Amino acid sequence: VIRAIIFDLDDTLFPSTSFTETARKEAVKAMIQSGLKANFEEAIKKLKEIIKEKGSNYQQHFNELVKYFNKKEDPRIIFKGVMTYHNIKTSLLRPNPKVIETLFYLSRRFKLFLLTDGLYAKQWDKIVRLGLDLFFNEDNTFISEKIGFKKPDLRLFKELLNKNNLKGEECIFVGDRIEKDLIPAKKLNMITVRILKGKYSKDKDDERVVDYKIKEIDELLDLDIIKDL
Amino acid sequence: VIRAIIFDLDDTLFPSTSFTETARKEAVKAMIQSGLKANFEEAIKKLKEIIKEKGSNYQQHFNELVKYFNKKEDPRIIFKGVMTYHNIKTSLLRPNPKVIETLFYLSRRFKLFLLTDGLYAKQWDKIVRLGLDLFFNEDNTFISEKIGFKKPDLRLFKELLNKNNLKGEECIFVGDRIEKDLIPAKKLNMITVRILKGKYSKDKDDERVVDYKIKEIDELLDLDIIKDL
Repeated sequence: VIRAIIFDLDDTLFPSTSFTETARKEAVKAMIQSGLKANFEEAIKKLKEIIKEKGSNYQQHFNELVKYFNKKEDPRIIFKGVMTYHNIKTSLLRPNPKVIETLFYLSRRFKLFLLTDGLYAKQWDKIVRLGLDLFFNEDNTFISEKIGFKKPDLRLFKELLNKNNLKGEECIFVGDRIEKDLIPAKKLNMITVRILKGKYSKDKDDERVVDYKIKEIDELLDLDIIKDL
Repeated sequence: VIRAIIFDLDDTLFPSTSFTETARKEAVKAMIQSGLKANFEEAIKKLKEIIKEKGSNYQQHFNELVKYFNKKEDPRIIFKGVMTYHNIKTSLLRPNPKVIETLFYLSRRFKLFLLTDGLYAKQWDKIVRLGLDLFFNEDNTFISEKIGFKKPDLRLFKELLNKNNLKGEECIFVGDRIEKDLIPAKKLNMITVRILKGKYSKDKDDERVVDYKIKEIDELLDLDIIKDL
């Protein structure tokens, strides 16, 4: 019997890749207007390299970008970029009626959980801005920084199961990443739903670990495993 | 001969106290709506105590507030407060035409400098949002975190003078705080202007260190020392 549905956050409950790309592009445009000595294409390319090298939670992406093209740090350009990035992100992180409605229906029949990699404050800021705090609170939200293990570490997934007296086979896991979400979920005998969103949506499929595939979150309501219950 | 005007930032070039109080009040209201077990007055009182105890750059004011009244941390309430605080602050930190115009006139006759206590990233975020990056760049902006000394440490003020081959008597200092701005400025023989803004505007005056008093920044243009030059 299915008792719970566990959701990943980024690129599962909101289009993280798309929002981030929009914010980065506008930030780069604002920086060029403020004196970044690069054209748009080369600046975006270099920014992506910096993010790949330093990781997405590094705080100095724009500093490095300005230093690279202008040969020195210029806080006027850097913080024009930082401001624009945050302004755009803040404008985009709004409740999505389709997501809220889907979670509302599911919450009447299943326990819902959030299992996400990231920094506690950053993830909670997103949860609140997206209005997902209607469904998720401290007890049913598992954030890697707080738990101490990152995906695909099974200890992160087991923490959720053990704390809630759940077995893997009683859970559906919904996520966008095969390696980090679906392989560990399947190892614990969960039913897995791959959502084809964001930069990993083109990754090769793996039928051994992916039970269902959807493009939008509301398609969950049509899956036999959920519909027939 | 007066060659330079040095400005403090918070409560000199923008009403920091007023913006912060507005943002805190709205944050507390949002937190109460989300389940903070307190009434508005007691929540504001407790928040002020926490800020006084931990300092204004401490990151966990709202966590402590929720823990105090609800006996446990609740991220839904905490981050509703954090989000509201930042939304309000961001909306208020906009260019002020009167300040921009005043600085524009002054910049035609004097070198302008900014000398401010605070975190580098936080101060630069404010400078850019306020549009003050029209006048201030890395070279004429001195931020305590970057320099390594805080007001009223004279070494912070001397760093500015030495880097720009200026003598104290060639400078006007404009700030809101007697202890942190005007006493050290006067020790270095600067002409001092006290701006009566924010929570320190009611502090007792000290004629030994305060040469001029103004309420709004554009009154600078009417001071004999500036007008007659």
